[in-house]
Amino acid sequence: MSVPGCNVRRMDETSESRRAVHAYIDSAERRDWERFGALLAEDVVYEMPQTRERIRGKSAFLRFNMDYPGDWHLQARRVVADGRHAAAWIDARVGDEHQDACVWFELSGEGLISRVVDYWPDPYDPPSDREHLVERW
Amino acid sequence: MSVPGCNVRRMDETSESRRAVHAYIDSAERRDWERFGALLAEDVVYEMPQTRERIRGKSAFLRFNMDYPGDWHLQARRVVADGRHAAAWIDARVGDEHQDACVWFELSGEGLISRVVDYWPDPYDPPSDREHLVERW
Repeated sequence: MSVPGCNVRRMDETSESRRAVHAYIDSAERRDWERFGALLAEDVVYEMPQTRERIRGKSAFLRFNMDYPGDWHLQARRVVADGRHAAAWIDARVGDEHQDACVWFELSGEGLISRVVDYWPDPYDPPSDREHLVERW
Repeated sequence: MSVPGCNVRRMDETSESRRAVHAYIDSAERRDWERFGALLAEDVVYEMPQTRERIRGKSAFLRFNMDYPGDWHLQARRVVADGRHAAAWIDARVGDEHQDACVWFELSGEGLISRVVDYWPDPYDPPSDREHLVERW
């Protein structure tokens, strides 16, 4: 359907991408690997630029997630979708330890997740030369 | 204007947010602090969760950026906008050293940047127990 003055296909893509990313986080949290796998393209590529690691293909990426050690829990802090791209800001928890993750997604024309780029930023000590501008929490 | 079957206002917000984030990166790269400041809400809040630092208000946040040491350069790797939220994946370079940044934005009803959350993930060594699944680059 074509509505004048409005790109309906693009709106649908954005909603579909947003839904896929929420389902990715939720199915991983529930260890529902069948649902998780159904969201992925067969040739999905997963990258961790901090360690320069790359995993190719649905089967290896599923294995990586199923085998990931620890009683980890994921919760979406924010999901931002824009056509066939999306980003997720995730609260990852193991016991009482929280770490934030920033995840970048690309989706195929069929709405399957085709690329995932994960960042796991660690805490660090701030420099002292900006103390006059900042507050700490 | 209301177009049936399509939320035009939402489309406009997304475009406006996307433009503001591109302008934020570009004006910082050019040290165009007048343009950079014009993108910010007066009560903008800037947070760096890794150091638990927070800066409040346009004036302090401008000063922080103007004073930031080094011959740094910023380039957008990806901008994802979704209504009044956006995320930017940025390549930050000082000399030959590159670091990725993940930045989360909130925009006011007027399209001004009202919240910025910056992550600067550092490289680290991967564990050895997933070598059978990954390739390195």
